[in-house]
Amino acid sequence: MTHILNSLESSVQQNIQALTRIYPHLSQLDNRPVLYNNQHDIATVPILSGGGSGHEPAHFGYVGDGMLSAAIAGPLFIPPKSDDILETIRFLNKGKGVFVIIKNFDADLAEFSSAIHQARAEGIAVKYIISHDDISVETSNFQVRHRGVAGTILLHKILGQAAKEGADLDELEELGLSLSTSIATLGVASRPASLPDKEQLMFELPEKYISYGIGIHGEPGYRTVLFESSENLAVELVNKLKMRFKWQETDDFILLINNLGGISKLEEWAFTDDVLQLLDLERLHLSFIKTGHLITTLDMAGLSITLCAVKDPTWIRLLIAPTNAAAW
Amino acid sequence: MTHILNSLESSVQQNIQALTRIYPHLSQLDNRPVLYNNQHDIATVPILSGGGSGHEPAHFGYVGDGMLSAAIAGPLFIPPKSDDILETIRFLNKGKGVFVIIKNFDADLAEFSSAIHQARAEGIAVKYIISHDDISVETSNFQVRHRGVAGTILLHKILGQAAKEGADLDELEELGLSLSTSIATLGVASRPASLPDKEQLMFELPEKYISYGIGIHGEPGYRTVLFESSENLAVELVNKLKMRFKWQETDDFILLINNLGGISKLEEWAFTDDVLQLLDLERLHLSFIKTGHLITTLDMAGLSITLCAVKDPTWIRLLIAPTNAAAW
Repeated sequence: MTHILNSLESSVQQNIQALTRIYPHLSQLDNRPVLYNNQHDIATVPILSGGGSGHEPAHFGYVGDGMLSAAIAGPLFIPPKSDDILETIRFLNKGKGVFVIIKNFDADLAEFSSAIHQARAEGIAVKYIISHDDISVETSNFQVRHRGVAGTILLHKILGQAAKEGADLDELEELGLSLSTSIATLGVASRPASLPDKEQLMFELPEKYISYGIGIHGEPGYRTVLFESSENLAVELVNKLKMRFKWQETDDFILLINNLGGISKLEEWAFTDDVLQLLDLERLHLSFIKTGHLITTLDMAGLSITLCAVKDPTWIRLLIAPTNAAAW
Repeated sequence: MTHILNSLESSVQQNIQALTRIYPHLSQLDNRPVLYNNQHDIATVPILSGGGSGHEPAHFGYVGDGMLSAAIAGPLFIPPKSDDILETIRFLNKGKGVFVIIKNFDADLAEFSSAIHQARAEGIAVKYIISHDDISVETSNFQVRHRGVAGTILLHKILGQAAKEGADLDELEELGLSLSTSIATLGVASRPASLPDKEQLMFELPEKYISYGIGIHGEPGYRTVLFESSENLAVELVNKLKMRFKWQETDDFILLINNLGGISKLEEWAFTDDVLQLLDLERLHLSFIKTGHLITTLDMAGLSITLCAVKDPTWIRLLIAPTNAAAW
């Protein structure tokens, strides 16, 4: 599979150059792989997120008013370096401290926590939340993986708007904890992404087979079966989500359908209809629905369903508030 | 290549069901493959567009305030039937007539013109514009193909806003003509789409090769070469666009970078940077830049560049006005 790039090494910098050229509110921090909102109101707590590249539009696409104050990228599927994270935290701190949203992967946690410890040692107030919405399981030990995937974008949006409206670090932490324990995501892929530097597929998946529970770095799923229909996929994923939430009729949810990269919009919208039909049969109330390329795995052909149990109607108000972030 | 669908036949109806469920301003017209803006102001001229499916988010994603009043879909890469178009025109006409935007393909023109003739025979005022922005050439006779491709979305947005602001049929026709002759598009693909009903690729393209000038129905391009770099692709396409426009320094343009379906956002944004660097060297002024999945060919891995020479600064004002269309 040919990738339309000059080189993998230059791709993050080229992304930054394109985005700063298109969006006046975005600037690059020095020569680092960091985009920040140059219109951030310093009377409010800045929010930082990031991770490896290959998930675009995450995370650069979520920098803007009422969302992230800055996003930092690493190389393909490799987290950003702690010294870049630390420098970004230093830059963002204007006396209100810095709030950080981290996806739950060991490598990400190592880099982010190292930077956070150092920043705190320098006297900067830093709090953070770890997103861990993936409810797929390891086939070896049946442990839930709890990786941070598409649900992370809800944290960006809701916490970003809360910060804009004046929430302090403690309030953001409390809201973040409440949110992150209310979100669950499960995905399926029909074609793995290919790696631009190796020109090989990220895992094995025979033609006409699909894999449930894939990760956003090409981690294989928990079960591989012959594809039958979009509806069958929706039934499997919704049933797993139902087991997680143990919902009652009229319970209120946020629904995200995430296109992992290479699925056509025709399929994305048709699959969304399958999911909506199933959730309607369950008589759930859906206060917010969004579909699209939210957090991808390059060009992987796959989709994920994210549900968030709405514990507080304020969340919906924060979610629907406008933002100038490029990808929301 | 597995497509995540229940069936190709049900896919358009499932798209309609998902979109009407998500967006309160969208409704289906009877049981037809038609979505309309149920909040359309009947004091203004309604605008209709459409075509075969397989190009999502076109055209359903562009129905909304200040954009299309209705969109109609046919089966995969097959235009809608004239009787469905006629019924939609009848429905939309509330005394102001109906304006229609048609992509330049023989099959589309046949269905739309048949419906327009019939509507006029019934006394409905109908005017139309044909988008023909593709500047690729037939290799057999070197004729410019002038198919209607990604530039069509600029017609939807600018004419839609003009109609919202009170333009009548004649004014829309004049504006449409001025616009459609100012827009040019050229694309490239690294992998053809596959057809869900046949599970085969739409044309031949060897691994590591790219094809310049591909169409949005899987029509092969004018030249197939070994892929070298994203920058090389940008140079070829920008040079062809330069020959078309014969631009001068400081000339003002609108730029769209269209993701034809299966290209990762990492590639899309990096390619955008290549294009922007070249246009900056030409010292063009870019008043509006947009990238994304605007009009696709299912999951084809490809990108196109659209430029529109800004003859009138009003166009930019109409372009940046907000809309609630799902995909703008």
